[in-house]
Amino acid sequence: MSETSAIPASPRQRAGFEVQAPCSSPGVALSDRIAAGLARVSDLMEAELASTSPVVGTVIGHLARYRGKMLRPTLVLTFAELADDRSQISEDSIRLAAVCEMVHLATLVHDDVLDAAQTRRGGPSINARHGNETAVLLGDLLFSRAYALCARVQSPDSERPYAELMGDIAATMCEGELLQLHHRNDQRVARETYFDIVNAKTAGLIGLSCRFGAVAAMPHDSETCDRVERIGRLLGAAFQIQDDILDLTSTEDTLGKPTGKDLGCGTFTLPLILYLHSALDHDRNVCNSLIERMADEPSVAHAARTQLVSLLESSGAMASARNEAQKLVTEAAADISRFPVSEARTALLAMAQQVLDRAR
Amino acid sequence: MSETSAIPASPRQRAGFEVQAPCSSPGVALSDRIAAGLARVSDLMEAELASTSPVVGTVIGHLARYRGKMLRPTLVLTFAELADDRSQISEDSIRLAAVCEMVHLATLVHDDVLDAAQTRRGGPSINARHGNETAVLLGDLLFSRAYALCARVQSPDSERPYAELMGDIAATMCEGELLQLHHRNDQRVARETYFDIVNAKTAGLIGLSCRFGAVAAMPHDSETCDRVERIGRLLGAAFQIQDDILDLTSTEDTLGKPTGKDLGCGTFTLPLILYLHSALDHDRNVCNSLIERMADEPSVAHAARTQLVSLLESSGAMASARNEAQKLVTEAAADISRFPVSEARTALLAMAQQVLDRAR
Repeated sequence: MSETSAIPASPRQRAGFEVQAPCSSPGVALSDRIAAGLARVSDLMEAELASTSPVVGTVIGHLARYRGKMLRPTLVLTFAELADDRSQISEDSIRLAAVCEMVHLATLVHDDVLDAAQTRRGGPSINARHGNETAVLLGDLLFSRAYALCARVQSPDSERPYAELMGDIAATMCEGELLQLHHRNDQRVARETYFDIVNAKTAGLIGLSCRFGAVAAMPHDSETCDRVERIGRLLGAAFQIQDDILDLTSTEDTLGKPTGKDLGCGTFTLPLILYLHSALDHDRNVCNSLIERMADEPSVAHAARTQLVSLLESSGAMASARNEAQKLVTEAAADISRFPVSEARTALLAMAQQVLDRAR
Repeated sequence: MSETSAIPASPRQRAGFEVQAPCSSPGVALSDRIAAGLARVSDLMEAELASTSPVVGTVIGHLARYRGKMLRPTLVLTFAELADDRSQISEDSIRLAAVCEMVHLATLVHDDVLDAAQTRRGGPSINARHGNETAVLLGDLLFSRAYALCARVQSPDSERPYAELMGDIAATMCEGELLQLHHRNDQRVARETYFDIVNAKTAGLIGLSCRFGAVAAMPHDSETCDRVERIGRLLGAAFQIQDDILDLTSTEDTLGKPTGKDLGCGTFTLPLILYLHSALDHDRNVCNSLIERMADEPSVAHAARTQLVSLLESSGAMASARNEAQKLVTEAAADISRFPVSEARTALLAMAQQVLDRAR
């Protein structure tokens, strides 16, 4: 449950996109099956995004930089195995996995416009390289191709159409981002609002990825699908909290993307929210002055951030934030453990723990 | 076939959105039926876009400014009548009409970001009022809600899923916009490239709107649906050519939106493309100098634009561009005329002529 895998296998390059074996399963078989499935997902995405226009092809080619370790497709495929480990990975699972990744990529491309991010995975972002206009259109193109593909997958009778589920989740993601924008520079943003934002912008799509895996394997068991979606939502929320912690505490070298982005955009995340809620006026002023200095030239900014993190650590706010993530993972793991013993269950439990242990 | 109706009926306000009777049918009945249908489309859009978040609700409220005369829903409903004038307007037609309008609104919101447009229909654009970030997210929200709604409409067996058709068309629109961006400031852009852009960015969605009307009324007659989509594409291309001509020749007061936007963005449209292709070096230089002056302060820019338009008129380039639009409309009208006589047919022929006659 991390953008890196629990036990990284040798990465292999496929058509410019990195595909990695996803999990630390003690058996080689699951890992191989998932890796083969991810390769099919990559091939399908490439085919779906192919364009007869060389102009469009060039821009899409640069998307390779946005591709990480395919967390969402990995969840689709692993939950399909958890729900029914006797089955082959179906074409529907591959399609739904590609849909989840394409929607995720669309949001990354648009997020980089919103954050004016100059880099992504160690290279220039689409907006930095091609301008905001191209990045907005490329995100729209990814959404559109994702929906066209999603609409081609027939959902079982007991489920609403997959494209409707995805449309609803994508709309909720936008609402979460709009809420976050509204609370920019809002030092008094409530803990509950933070969780509303996290659930909307991150947990929903990860939950749906897990559901898509289960539903493709067990189309008529809506109770299991609901349960799997809930597990995904818990892990997704924990993942976002950890992401927000790493944005404060990590470095660009370790994380592979710029850090300090949240405060750079005026977004207050859980450690700071918890700190500020119990801070006295004096501490609040110290904190504000450090945040201001983080917009200064790099050496001043770096020193200010180090001091801010010390403050958050010594006050216990950082530990409280980590504890919130831990509680979510514990709840998810307990629910995963209710499934019968299988390679997929073992792998998912390891992925859940990785949410908290990951350094990137 | 215009953002204004052929014979404007009294506009009425519904929940902040303007709804207008759509056509010049000699019988009152069709006009009333369509007006009632458009009111249902408005109500449905309002319901689909409703949000439990006051923050999101405020931004969506400002969308009213982006709503014009509901051209695409009008086409859905009128082609449904043309295909089968005995039927009531079905709930599916209303839903598909709302989907077309929501996708159109999404592209307008994103277009205003791409063009850095400050105004829309006489008031501030979403990006001017709320910033680019909000405008990007609001466009994404509209796309997502449109797809969720579209996925709920069951397509007949002979049709691909509606959400797939819409996803494909929306992707093509993005490709058209990307191609247009690529040719910014390209004085040598080919006439064929211009038509590729127009067909992708405008004709496709208008064609699909017409198809959606026909298919909801005649689900098993794919030949008629293909024919109707082709009519829509012809009208859509003519509509865009006329739009590009008006962007050069009209004023903001008459058009209700800023003019000179295309050249302001470095986009060369048909009249200029035709002029430059046959221009001598001297004329090309005069033209370039006028275009440069159009970026100057308002009075200089205005004089330069007047001179440029005179040049395009006197050279015959403007007439040639108008002639291209006329040919498309004539072809569409001939195909509309092959349908049996009906109120809808009369209305559609009048709308087709309006494409060329409209001043806004």
